[in-house]
Amino acid sequence: MLPKSIQKTINELSRLPGIGAKTAQRLAMYLLRDNKKLHRDLGEALINLTDGVHYCIECHNLADGELCKICDNPLRDKSLICVVGEALDVVSIENTGQYKGVYHVLHGVLSPIDGIGPEDIKMDALIRRVENRMNTDYPVREIILATNPSVEGEATALYIQRQIMGLKTTLPSTEYPEAELRITRIARGIPIGGELEYADYVTLTKAMEGRQNY
Amino acid sequence: MLPKSIQKTINELSRLPGIGAKTAQRLAMYLLRDNKKLHRDLGEALINLTDGVHYCIECHNLADGELCKICDNPLRDKSLICVVGEALDVVSIENTGQYKGVYHVLHGVLSPIDGIGPEDIKMDALIRRVENRMNTDYPVREIILATNPSVEGEATALYIQRQIMGLKTTLPSTEYPEAELRITRIARGIPIGGELEYADYVTLTKAMEGRQNY
Repeated sequence: MLPKSIQKTINELSRLPGIGAKTAQRLAMYLLRDNKKLHRDLGEALINLTDGVHYCIECHNLADGELCKICDNPLRDKSLICVVGEALDVVSIENTGQYKGVYHVLHGVLSPIDGIGPEDIKMDALIRRVENRMNTDYPVREIILATNPSVEGEATALYIQRQIMGLKTTLPSTEYPEAELRITRIARGIPIGGELEYADYVTLTKAMEGRQNY
Repeated sequence: MLPKSIQKTINELSRLPGIGAKTAQRLAMYLLRDNKKLHRDLGEALINLTDGVHYCIECHNLADGELCKICDNPLRDKSLICVVGEALDVVSIENTGQYKGVYHVLHGVLSPIDGIGPEDIKMDALIRRVENRMNTDYPVREIILATNPSVEGEATALYIQRQIMGLKTTLPSTEYPEAELRITRIARGIPIGGELEYADYVTLTKAMEGRQNY
């Protein structure tokens, strides 16, 4: 019923997650009607999406070159590694403007139901990264586990913690004293602006357990 | 923080209605990760969106050529015109598979607040279309006003009805007997599957007023 070029755009838009047939129709009509340049700009941006996109050889974050901007920045503290599930999590943490360490992007979390094991995500790369630095002058001091507080995210954090603990025990304590490598987990609790009344009991339990001196 | 090509895609996606910064990020990541071909297919479809798109010279619907597929179809009843606000409304009505007449797409509705008057939509074209057929062998028999049941849609329907009535009274009754041109409005009432309990009072009033013999 609609002209071919419009129907084609609607079909392609419908393939995006969260965009159904109706939304795709409305977007196509918006693009057709409102702004002659936007559909071209967006089209070109999409075609060039993957151009020059690499994965950082150090942390596996998205990068313009071999190293991402964060690993390439001499001012960032390389002894502090924040482990996240996805590249967008890096963007979120960077937006706080508070974190001065580096990252490790796993590109997924452990999920036995979906058949995702340690070999399917950048888990080995993380273990090797920590291990390779153990006997150097610049060892890793702290690993912050910042995977999501979901079932999979928690399991992934626990798995990493055990792997790193395993690394530590295989080395003589003189070479890598326990105190020198901390493994931490981001705090789970009531979000700012949230209300205790509406918090689920797991969150509230975690908030109580994670209480700090005031 | 993100590679340039990705950031550019996110910026362009954010310009779409209903797509905020977070959704744009997620869509870009989905396109980057999941399907190498989709971002190209979608990009090309968007660039070619307006290629070969015309407006039907008869009904102003979107068309591949001079006439839209509906006006070009000899099996459609040209004496029955359904007036709608937007081209997507044609798609919705066509999807019912029940309507065998033709359409008239106004490309908007009267909205004094937004400064949209009769001259900004395809109103004159509709009046002329009806008028030009009045003294021919194929006059318009019925005009179905199918603008949305919103304040603007109702006002637009009322305006059209008065304009057409004006046309009728300027002609000698012998030339265009009143009975030959019906002006109808789509039924407003409780949608199928809806519940009276949750219907607003305007809808319920319209449903009562529009009751039919059973």
